[in-house]
Amino acid sequence: MKKVGLADTTFARHDMASDAINELKSNATGLKLVRVTVPGIKDLPVACKKLIEEEGCNVCMAFGMPGPDPKDKVTAQVASTGLVQAQLMTNTHILEVFVHEDEAEGKKLAKLCESRAREHAQNLLRMLFHPAKMTRRAGTGQREGFEDAGPLK
Amino acid sequence: MKKVGLADTTFARHDMASDAINELKSNATGLKLVRVTVPGIKDLPVACKKLIEEEGCNVCMAFGMPGPDPKDKVTAQVASTGLVQAQLMTNTHILEVFVHEDEAEGKKLAKLCESRAREHAQNLLRMLFHPAKMTRRAGTGQREGFEDAGPLK
Amino acid sequence: MKKVGLADTTFARHDMASDAINELKSNATGLKLVRVTVPGIKDLPVACKKLIEEEGCNVCMAFGMPGPDPKDKVTAQVASTGLVQAQLMTNTHILEVFVHEDEAEGKKLAKLCESRAREHAQNLLRMLFHPAKMTRRAGTGQREGFEDAGPLK
Amino acid sequence: MKKVGLADTTFARHDMASDAINELKSNATGLKLVRVTVPGIKDLPVACKKLIEEEGCNVCMAFGMPGPDPKDKVTAQVASTGLVQAQLMTNTHILEVFVHEDEAEGKKLAKLCESRAREHAQNLLRMLFHPAKMTRRAGTGQREGFEDAGPLK
Amino acid sequence: MKKVGLADTTFARHDMASDAINELKSNATGLKLVRVTVPGIKDLPVACKKLIEEEGCNVCMAFGMPGPDPKDKVTAQVASTGLVQAQLMTNTHILEVFVHEDEAEGKKLAKLCESRAREHAQNLLRMLFHPAKMTRRAGTGQREGFEDAGPLK
Repeated sequence: MKKVGLADTTFARHDMASDAINELKSNATGLKLVRVTVPGIKDLPVACKKLIEEEGCNVCMAFGMPGPDPKDKVTAQVASTGLVQAQLMTNTHILEVFVHEDEAEGKKLAKLCESRAREHAQNLLRMLFHPAKMTRRAGTGQREGFEDAGPLK
Repeated sequence: MKKVGLADTTFARHDMASDAINELKSNATGLKLVRVTVPGIKDLPVACKKLIEEEGCNVCMAFGMPGPDPKDKVTAQVASTGLVQAQLMTNTHILEVFVHEDEAEGKKLAKLCESRAREHAQNLLRMLFHPAKMTRRAGTGQREGFEDAGPLK
Repeated sequence: MKKVGLADTTFARHDMASDAINELKSNATGLKLVRVTVPGIKDLPVACKKLIEEEGCNVCMAFGMPGPDPKDKVTAQVASTGLVQAQLMTNTHILEVFVHEDEAEGKKLAKLCESRAREHAQNLLRMLFHPAKMTRRAGTGQREGFEDAGPLK
Repeated sequence: MKKVGLADTTFARHDMASDAINELKSNATGLKLVRVTVPGIKDLPVACKKLIEEEGCNVCMAFGMPGPDPKDKVTAQVASTGLVQAQLMTNTHILEVFVHEDEAEGKKLAKLCESRAREHAQNLLRMLFHPAKMTRRAGTGQREGFEDAGPLK
Repeated sequence: MKKVGLADTTFARHDMASDAINELKSNATGLKLVRVTVPGIKDLPVACKKLIEEEGCNVCMAFGMPGPDPKDKVTAQVASTGLVQAQLMTNTHILEVFVHEDEAEGKKLAKLCESRAREHAQNLLRMLFHPAKMTRRAGTGQREGFEDAGPLK
């Protein structure tokens, strides 16, 4: 049985982890889900590392919503760098599901959060159970939450 | 008994650690607190790692006040990167409680420092003793020290 | 027999890994190729580390196409930093084959992707089998995918 | 007996290490000082790590003078990141004593170098022998080399 | 006998490693030199780490020529960060000898490359055999390849 870790924040303004949990449960059976919530995105790397090393998760998702200020952009870079480092220290994938608060507004932003969370949940299932399906999509310009860019013509 | 490490700086212009200590003591019993003070925020990562590995702290708070210049912004990024790294090396949470000197002015800035320190102390208690309460707040747009942004509508 | 790992993304808009595989197969015999596809470039570092440590690859190629926005540029920096780190943790070369989406447009961009992938496949073969040929090209201003800049005059 | 490592550069335009050595010797007895000089600030992290691990230093000071160009600012960030990392790898404090060449001019810059070096030497002595004195200064807006900013009012 | 590693790139437009080799051989006897060439500067960190750990080099030089675009500047930062990390992982100095392509033009740039390479070769010899000579130059504003800035007056 595969164990999936989900780490999210109280700072974000949409509950993306619940969207992903719904998507995972609707599309796979026998997954064990473990969820933990931290204050902000800089707390996600160690949260995921603990899910992997202390809870035995085989893969993680890290949800966050960086704010619009320059300071927030730096925070996002620090968090992403830490998530990559956590993966390298554990040889385990952590899918970063970040929606920047300035990618859209209001309802549109909430919708973007939900679809990005769901599409990354689909990525996770493909990576876990059908890696060949990922390779079939290689270089095809997939975009999570937005319309796909598609391959170059 | 849980041991909480608190690291702060002589550079900051408000004693946030004392605010956090007061908040922790008013809301929890049986916590052991260990405090250490360093010159600036770049000294915080190793200070916290030592609190964890040499003093046996189960969780830390790192308080700092980055200055307003571009040089100071880079310093903040370096410090934050180090704090994330210290967490990954120890599998232990370190809550970063930074107030940038240009977030507000004078009395307002001091007030912001105090409330951010206190609200992060509350986060720490929730993470330590009531993790389910954190998840109930997931995606609700919490802001430490400022009015909450709230969930998207 | 040498084992070459290839990691690429579904985000990219051209299938560079297939170009490189074609180039490798046309120019060398007895290579074993292992390919894995991940969502985006920040997923590449751990994908390569796993190819090296779990699949026994002797060298890797990491293909990606960072987008044109400032946010994408930061993502590219985070991914590159992780790829360097993965190499240092494994003492194994990972050739980063990134084409930024704003380096060219449409057909020209696709052509650039293909030639950069092929020329880096040639680099990989030289590094693996003829390191002296690399040193003969030292300081000669080689450019993968574009016309060579050549040595200074 | 405590052993203090001092690493500095030939790039800097003022001999800050000598100022610090003078300050340390005037204010403490029984300290053992070990000094090493490298070309530039990016050479300081490993120099300090070697002072700690190969020379047995209990604490270090790293002196440098980043230049005024954007390229130099990046160099300073890389050096600082490395110094933080060296501390985390050794659980040992390294006080970074950097004076940016554009913080002042001519004689004023030399004076700034000297006072920053001396005040950080004082910090080092407090951290080593009187940590409680550091905490008494917590949040008081200390500035090394410039007039103190003082606490917020 | 001391073993010196030299890593350089095919991307650079001047063969700095050969200049350094010439300088080393003209000024020291009994050095063993090992050279390896990689495509670009991001390949240098692992190349140097392998020279140290697999070839037994006591010290390394890493030669590169970052391009003039913003993208190239980020590449330089990633490469430098990796070189610092490689040093920390091996407790071994790696002298970074980078000449940015926009530091000068044509013949002047080639001349700059040569003198920077030679002067850093001199630094390496001093660090290896006469460390006290480095300290005599501490804080004197040395510049490799350009006229020295000299000490502040």
